[in-house]
Amino acid sequence: MDLPESIKAVVEQFSKLPGVGEKTALRQSLIIGQWNKQQINEFSQSLSALCLLKNCQICGMLTDEPLCTICLSDERIKSPVICVVESITDCLAIEKSGEFTGKFHILGGVLNPLLGVGPSELNLESLMRRVQSEPAEEIILAVNPSVEGDATCSYIKELLPTKLRIERIGFGIPMGGNLEYLDSMTIMKALENRTEI
Amino acid sequence: MDLPESIKAVVEQFSKLPGVGEKTALRQSLIIGQWNKQQINEFSQSLSALCLLKNCQICGMLTDEPLCTICLSDERIKSPVICVVESITDCLAIEKSGEFTGKFHILGGVLNPLLGVGPSELNLESLMRRVQSEPAEEIILAVNPSVEGDATCSYIKELLPTKLRIERIGFGIPMGGNLEYLDSMTIMKALENRTEI
Repeated sequence: MDLPESIKAVVEQFSKLPGVGEKTALRQSLIIGQWNKQQINEFSQSLSALCLLKNCQICGMLTDEPLCTICLSDERIKSPVICVVESITDCLAIEKSGEFTGKFHILGGVLNPLLGVGPSELNLESLMRRVQSEPAEEIILAVNPSVEGDATCSYIKELLPTKLRIERIGFGIPMGGNLEYLDSMTIMKALENRTEI
Repeated sequence: MDLPESIKAVVEQFSKLPGVGEKTALRQSLIIGQWNKQQINEFSQSLSALCLLKNCQICGMLTDEPLCTICLSDERIKSPVICVVESITDCLAIEKSGEFTGKFHILGGVLNPLLGVGPSELNLESLMRRVQSEPAEEIILAVNPSVEGDATCSYIKELLPTKLRIERIGFGIPMGGNLEYLDSMTIMKALENRTEI
């Protein structure tokens, strides 16, 4: 039996999303296919509205306005700490922890020569401009631990003026973690990063 | 930090889908937010097109045309076997097995007094009309095993003309299953449904 063309088209779109296989995409498309006209149009229109999203002119975050809410906040933009992250989702994860009150800078990835991601593909030029024009004393490189992430951190450290204090977020045992189940690399890092109590 | 309103709106829509939590919805919305205008519009338009979907006038399947591909197929509509299923997805699962060459009838649920689903909420009237007007000798009730499913099958059996051969799909050990890990109800059913070899 052939599925209706309109369902096939939506399945194709859902399948583009990460973590959505053909089966999930079909299930979701069929469910939407059974919604009423108004519900379908609401979903469709909410998607169209995403066309208006842009990147914050300062930090690179997605925003409806020219600047994102953090860069619009007087208090935060005056902070001397810039937290450099790979992606918008990493930025949101840090915001959710509620620990950080400085400002962000979103790289949009890490250096990866194999995938053709060089320094010009990352949001680096604007970072250089920011450390000149904005209050900036401390740069936290909240880049995920990986070969590419490590290389990106070294590269950024070389680029930035030496007067800045440049740090990387701490690596070790996650809260609730158990030594028995952790990989050797994490345990090695945790031993390296031991602190006096 | 506040997310852009347009992202929040899409998150809300995605969260309506089964199996999509807030975290997945946010991840998917952010990914679409980074697509280009054309890609976003394609997704949005494919959704709008679902407004044009209707239920097949004969069997209840979703379709772009007045009749679905099965009810349009001369060979299948002439078959004397009607397979009654709960949902469109159950119908697709049977089609995928490739075993069945008859026609379908989609109930759109099972009787469930607690959720307010009575006989009038199900696609039953049209089933009664079909067994009068179409070739019909055998009805396979491919309704899932549950208290509600069992009740629905008994109800349909009472409704249908007695000249019809009415059957229910077989229950037992699934292929690749292992007695050790199966529930007692399934094992009981499998023993009941034993066949001579």
